[in-house]
This record gives sequence, C-alpha cells and structure tokens, in this order.
Amino acid sequence: MPKKIFFTPGPSALYFTVEEHLKHALRDQVMEINHRSSQAEGYFFDAVSNLKSLMNIPEEYEIFFLSSATEIWERQLHNLVSEKSYHYCYGAFSNRFYDFASKWGLNAIKQESEFGELPETNPSEIPNDVELITLALNETSTGVSFPIEDFEAIRAAHPDKLIAVDGVSAFPVIDIEFSKIDSAYFSVQKCFGLPAGLGVWIVSPRAIAKAEEKLAEGQSIGSYQAIPNLLKNSKKGQTSFTANVLNIYLLSKVSGDMLEKGIESIRIEANYKAALLNHLADSNNYLEPFVTEKRLKSKTVMVANTQIPSDQIIDVLARKGFIIGNGYGKFKGKQIRIASFPTHSKEQMELLVDTINSMTF
Amino acid sequence: MPKKIFFTPGPSALYFTVEEHLKHALRDQVMEINHRSSQAEGYFFDAVSNLKSLMNIPEEYEIFFLSSATEIWERQLHNLVSEKSYHYCYGAFSNRFYDFASKWGLNAIKQESEFGELPETNPSEIPNDVELITLALNETSTGVSFPIEDFEAIRAAHPDKLIAVDGVSAFPVIDIEFSKIDSAYFSVQKCFGLPAGLGVWIVSPRAIAKAEEKLAEGQSIGSYQAIPNLLKNSKKGQTSFTANVLNIYLLSKVSGDMLEKGIESIRIEANYKAALLNHLADSNNYLEPFVTEKRLKSKTVMVANTQIPSDQIIDVLARKGFIIGNGYGKFKGKQIRIASFPTHSKEQMELLVDTINSMTF
Repeated sequence: MPKKIFFTPGPSALYFTVEEHLKHALRDQVMEINHRSSQAEGYFFDAVSNLKSLMNIPEEYEIFFLSSATEIWERQLHNLVSEKSYHYCYGAFSNRFYDFASKWGLNAIKQESEFGELPETNPSEIPNDVELITLALNETSTGVSFPIEDFEAIRAAHPDKLIAVDGVSAFPVIDIEFSKIDSAYFSVQKCFGLPAGLGVWIVSPRAIAKAEEKLAEGQSIGSYQAIPNLLKNSKKGQTSFTANVLNIYLLSKVSGDMLEKGIESIRIEANYKAALLNHLADSNNYLEPFVTEKRLKSKTVMVANTQIPSDQIIDVLARKGFIIGNGYGKFKGKQIRIASFPTHSKEQMELLVDTINSMTF
Repeated sequence: MPKKIFFTPGPSALYFTVEEHLKHALRDQVMEINHRSSQAEGYFFDAVSNLKSLMNIPEEYEIFFLSSATEIWERQLHNLVSEKSYHYCYGAFSNRFYDFASKWGLNAIKQESEFGELPETNPSEIPNDVELITLALNETSTGVSFPIEDFEAIRAAHPDKLIAVDGVSAFPVIDIEFSKIDSAYFSVQKCFGLPAGLGVWIVSPRAIAKAEEKLAEGQSIGSYQAIPNLLKNSKKGQTSFTANVLNIYLLSKVSGDMLEKGIESIRIEANYKAALLNHLADSNNYLEPFVTEKRLKSKTVMVANTQIPSDQIIDVLARKGFIIGNGYGKFKGKQIRIASFPTHSKEQMELLVDTINSMTF
C-alpha cells in the first residue's frame, strides 16, 4: 500500500529527509550513546547553531531542549512569573496556557475573543504590574495568526515586560524579530516534521535574569527545569534530564537541511501554499473560511467550516491517502484543518486541493 | 566498522528487536499519526497491558506515560505530598529526588548512607507524619540494590503511608510485589532497551486518592501532569501532552517480546550475568567490588573500583567495540559501571568478561 500523506496540523508528515537520517542514526548508534557523551553534545550544539542561523536568533539567547511545548508553558510560569501574567486567548492552546497559570495559583489575566477571531490587542489594556505577556503566533486550533505589527506595538508599549511567543506551528515559517521576544518555544512535530517528543525553548538574557531574581528572592523556580540548571547543562551541550537524544539528532539534521534549502525559499513556498488553501476555502462549495479577517489568516494551518459533517470529507480523502485534520474540540465534525508545513511540497498541496475540489457528496 | 556493544547503565544497548520494530514503525507511519488517533491509542493500551502482565501489576493500578523518570520525581512530589516526605539516599539519583523535594519547598527528610552502602532501614526511624517514603530499588550510580525484605518490613510497619519505588534500572528484572507499592516508575532506556525519551509511572488507587484529596483541599497538584488529568487521558489510551508516540509503540512491542521470552528466563539470565560480573570484580587484578555487602549487590548494574584510572580500562575496551560506563559524579575516573540488562546476552557478557580479564596495563 502506498504511504499516506499527512496534512494534519501536528504530528504531521515527517520532513522528507527524516527517513534517511534515521538510517544514519542507527548506523551511528545515536539511540544507544550516553546523553552526556561528546557525540550527543555535538548534536546539541549543531541543533542550537542551526536554529540560531535559521531563525536569526541573537547569539546571546539560550536554547534549551525539554519534552514538549506543553511542558514549556509550565516552566515559563515557574521561572518567569512571581504573581501576575497576561494571556491573549483565542483558541484551545492559548487558553490552555492561561489555565495552567490559574492552576499554579498565579493571578492570571485573560484577554479573550471568540475562536476564529483575535482579542483586543491595544497595548494600553495591559496592566502595568503584569510580569509576562503571552501570545501564540499561530493558534493551531483555529488557524488564527497573531499579526506581527500588533506584537510590535505591544513590545514598544511595554519595553520592561517579558513577552512569551508560542511558535509551535509558526517557527521557522513565520518571520519575527527574536530580539524583541524574551521567551519563545515550539515543538518539533509541526513545521520541523519530526516525530513528537521534544520541545524547544529559546530564552533571552532578560528571561534568565528574571528566573535568577526569583530564586534570589527565595521563591521556588522548580528543580531540574529551573533556568539556572537548564543553563548550566546547555553550556555543556547537555540537557537537564535524559532527553530524547534521537530527536535532538534529527533536529540538528533537519534544521541543517532547511538552512541548505534557504529559509527564504521555505517562506515563499509557504505563501504560495497558503494562497492555494485560502482560495480553496473561499471557492469550494462545501467549505467556507473560519478565519475571515485577512490579516489573521495563518500561513501554516488553514481551518475551514464545512457545509456537511467534516468527517465525510476527511474519510473520502483518507481513502485516497490524504490525511487531514478535524476541527479541534467543539469544532470536531464541523471543520477541517489542513497543515501546510515546510515538508509539504507545492505539488502535494496542489494535488490535495484538486482532489478536494473534485469531490461531490 | 562493526557496531559497538553498549554495556553502559543507560542509555544502553537497544533491545535486540528494536531495529526491526523501527522498520515497521516507518511502514505504519507511527511517527506521523495523531497522538489521539485510535492507532496511537492501540499502542498505549498494548503497552499498558503488556507491562501489567510482565510485572504482575494489579489490574486496578494505572499506568501513565511521561517524559522521563526525572519528571516523575517531580510529579510525585506535586501530586502525592502536601508537606512531608522521607527519602532513602544512597547515591546520586536517590539524593536528587530528595533535592527536588527541598527545591519545591517541602519538608523533606533524608535517611542517608555513604555511596556503596545502604542507609539504616529500620522502619521505626520513619516519623509518623510522613506522607511519602521513597527508595530506589537499584541505585544506578552505585550499583546498590535495596533489599526486598527491607522494603517489605517498611511496608508492614507503615501500612498507611505511600511508598514510591524507583525501578529505573530494576524493572522488569527485579521481582517486587506491586500491590505493596503506591507509586513506581522507570525510564525506558535502561532494562527495556529503548531510545531515551519516555518515563513510565505506575500508581495505585491510594496514590490517585491522595492527589484528589490534595486538590479537594485547595492545594495545587500542578496542571497537565496532575493525576486526575493523567487519569482522564489514560482511560482513553492517551497522554496528557503530545508524547513520544514512537517510544510508546516501541515499548508495546518490546514488552511483548519480553512476554514471549518469559520473565522467568529474563530473571534467570540476569542472575547468571550478575554472577559473572561479581566474580569479575572479585577476581580481576585491576578491580575490586564497590558494593561489598552481598545482599546489596545489584543484578543489573555492577560497579567496581579500579586500581588504575578507570578511563584506561574504558578506552581499551572502547577500541575493541565494548562501551562500558565510567564512575558517576565524584567517582568518575575511579570506577567502572557495567550494565547487565535483558538485551545483553549471556554470550556477550562472557565475551566482555573474558576481554577484561585478558587486559594488562
């Protein structure tokens, strides 16, 4: 049976070079080496260096490897907030970050909107005693993109506050100036096309200072994932626990492949594929775009309402070998979600769009 | 170049069937499927069912998949302790669990010994207001085993307290009655011979009740790794975050292979290999056993002091394709550590021992 093509918004299709890298990983016994060996440290440093080049991350920023973006939500709260955080909430994932803050007993403020829309982003709404502002560059559940210009305005109005940017399904496709971010994170099973099981956390010197300040004031910042411990290990090319060495290896390789291809090519292709998908949602009889405001439309995850139960569309496509995503949460059965990640070629996307357009129910 | 054989105490040699399972994982697109798909749920339930059969875990116990045993130390503290924990400390790892409790602001009590020995295990030493007692069945850093009879005595003397057993490098080789444990955990890169990046947490109904009680009393038990959330997901065959699906798949397969081989065979082989290694440490001119008390000698990790810098022995063996472990922490350069896990055959162990015995410096 031919392989299926996964257009799901994560886990998704493997980056097209992963299978080859896996063969080399077996040959080089990457899954057997000690996580504190020089061989493993080499993969760590390669991954960090490639990610910094790929996304133009300032040299003085630190990159840590944790288990998932979900874990990084929590670690940010432990390390970067003493009392008060401010969360833009406009989908399942941005809301979950807010929920975590509440569950850990913080004074968490929510600026929310209906799903498919964006909350009020006027920076003057943000109270002055907030320590951390959080936003998702791309809400994977709704296909809403946080406009860069809104982020820039918030940054400019609140130069002293920490800003955390969820880049889970956005990095490295969406271009953003990392020097304006204090904490950024993603998981590797989205745009990087890797197996699930690794979260990447990028922190600014100011974020590191905040964690050290909390600790100096006698507040708990956790144990092995406290920033000073992450930092002590990352300086040696090591993780703070026995991490997924295979995935760090694969990330070092795939980020290298992306550098070779060129981030500009990846971004130009993303624009083309997003245009195809947006046109599909606008023109297909069974679909309508969920996100209607043009500046909010995601370049990596297209979400459409369906005029018929979405499972019908999903099932017919599955029989043809195309796996797309269902609506998230309460939108299950009412929407489809299609990922457009760097591994998805223009030709694959054209084929998918043509196939959907040829379907009748 | 022929492949190296890893006798390191974790990460270690892959279980001998893993490469074949990886090929099937690629064919079945295990690394691309959604972690909440029925395919992924199937792997979850298979792994749970196989682990329960293999280690004779009571049906009413729950098994959760987290990122590492390190994470599980922390989650136990969040979920199972309000104020006071009691830790047997006799090596780097058992001490680290204690350190985590202190860092999270708990009233943590340490019952400690020199490395290579066992602390006083008289149950009357344990204060009555302790909520959780922790011990490591096998201290991977020192090769000290916690005698089952001492565990049984502690259990009998403190029927009302929760007991947490670190089985990181012990399960499934060491036989213990799970019905007497409230919280048990291991990571898959030791005896199960899998790539690093998955921790397994086994909890009793009493442990679940304790977390629910803490929550009902208004105490924080965390967010996504709070037991009620882990439980809600595990009932569906799901994890609380986008976990390492590949490793859950591999665990389901390798635990199945172990069941087919039979846990008795695995344990008999472990006894034979441990005897070989203990005899090596007793008789080789360059070595002496670190753990001298017979009842404390580990069946899975042999630690020996070296009469010459241990790197010399390690390097010569590495050139012959045998990778063994160095001393841990302050014992680096002064000890060797050799893992004897289920994937290590009797013949491999004989070959390693013969090779070490043939070396002269």
